[in-house]
Amino acid sequence: MTQLTVTTYKECIDACIRCMNVCNVSYVSSLKGLDIFELRECLRLDRECADLCGVAIQAMTRNSPFVAEICELVAKACDACADECMKHKHEHCQECVEVCRECASICRSVLVTA
Amino acid sequence: MTQLTVTTYKECIDACIRCMNVCNVSYVSSLKGLDIFELRECLRLDRECADLCGVAIQAMTRNSPFVAEICELVAKACDACADECMKHKHEHCQECVEVCRECASICRSVLVTA
Amino acid sequence: MTQLTVTTYKECIDACIRCMNVCNVSYVSSLKGLDIFELRECLRLDRECADLCGVAIQAMTRNSPFVAEICELVAKACDACADECMKHKHEHCQECVEVCRECASICRSVLVTA
Amino acid sequence: MTQLTVTTYKECIDACIRCMNVCNVSYVSSLKGLDIFELRECLRLDRECADLCGVAIQAMTRNSPFVAEICELVAKACDACADECMKHKHEHCQECVEVCRECASICRSVLVTA
Repeated sequence: MTQLTVTTYKECIDACIRCMNVCNVSYVSSLKGLDIFELRECLRLDRECADLCGVAIQAMTRNSPFVAEICELVAKACDACADECMKHKHEHCQECVEVCRECASICRSVLVTA
Repeated sequence: MTQLTVTTYKECIDACIRCMNVCNVSYVSSLKGLDIFELRECLRLDRECADLCGVAIQAMTRNSPFVAEICELVAKACDACADECMKHKHEHCQECVEVCRECASICRSVLVTA
Repeated sequence: MTQLTVTTYKECIDACIRCMNVCNVSYVSSLKGLDIFELRECLRLDRECADLCGVAIQAMTRNSPFVAEICELVAKACDACADECMKHKHEHCQECVEVCRECASICRSVLVTA
Repeated sequence: MTQLTVTTYKECIDACIRCMNVCNVSYVSSLKGLDIFELRECLRLDRECADLCGVAIQAMTRNSPFVAEICELVAKACDACADECMKHKHEHCQECVEVCRECASICRSVLVTA
């Protein structure tokens, strides 16, 4: 039996804020490290993901008619970012994996009330 | 026989810039008019569309891995904006219809090289 | 004797998130009302303010070198939005006044650590 | 005798589009290079500058009341980006220097008609 998880905008906004924050912190950490060459794809996806989270937060707070599509897009960016960060042992990468996975899941279950 | 239209990022960026500009001009015109009540859905969609065009322009100029999804999203916003603007005779609304339709078409045919 | 209030990025990010949210909620309420003509300048400034709050949140979470200037800009937008909303009795306008004033004050006292 | 240079929004929007594009191209090039460690501050400022150019373009096309402040902010970001890129011989860095300097100059002379 399928269980439907209904997520409110409030929960999804909070998840996107956490994700934007963790991704941007990881971006800054990657930029400062001596191993930036190994982390170049991480830092690129961190920023892509953080930027799209920002778009989603704006969209949800103003009840945009495109919330469903935007949240689906954020979920893809979160997955891509988590897949890349999984390849690295750094604490900030591991935290990214966890928070991105959670955000992707919440974005996919958001209750579209627009 | 199917004819494939291939659109470069350059063409699509130009289309999104034109669309952002026309939508924002229409937004400002709607805001100033005495008939703002009739145009309220127009001005809302003008801003939604202009904002997403801005996201797409940034994404294409930095060769984002999510260009395809973002352009599909812009195309939907353009269609929604054009559908609403079609209901109004104002010159700025009619210009929106034309430019949004063109932008939607170009976004859907963009050559994804990422 | 001058008392220096030091605000951390965390506090300022939280204030900007609250402000973006309240401004966008007020924008949506203004758009739906029968008195949209009276509220047209409110809804315009609501969106200006919400968008700039979004820029500030991104900037602070990625420790941008331009945080000080961006927070100063947000403070101006908050003041302008609050000044306009003060002219209206609507509950969403009054909430905007309070949250924008608070956000402006916090933005001006943010501790720039970049 | 002082000569006043008046720049229209149209010219300034075009300058910001060029600058966003060149900065984002330089960001992508820096990300792909073997010498990313040397270019880390460049790529950081490329993205800061490109993002703020995007904010300015949106602001000017919608005749924001904060165009003057936003253009001043973009000019600072352009200068910071150009100063950093000047330290590197790469063609994409040198192009950034030229386009950022031009954009900064145009942003400072923009005719504020809001």
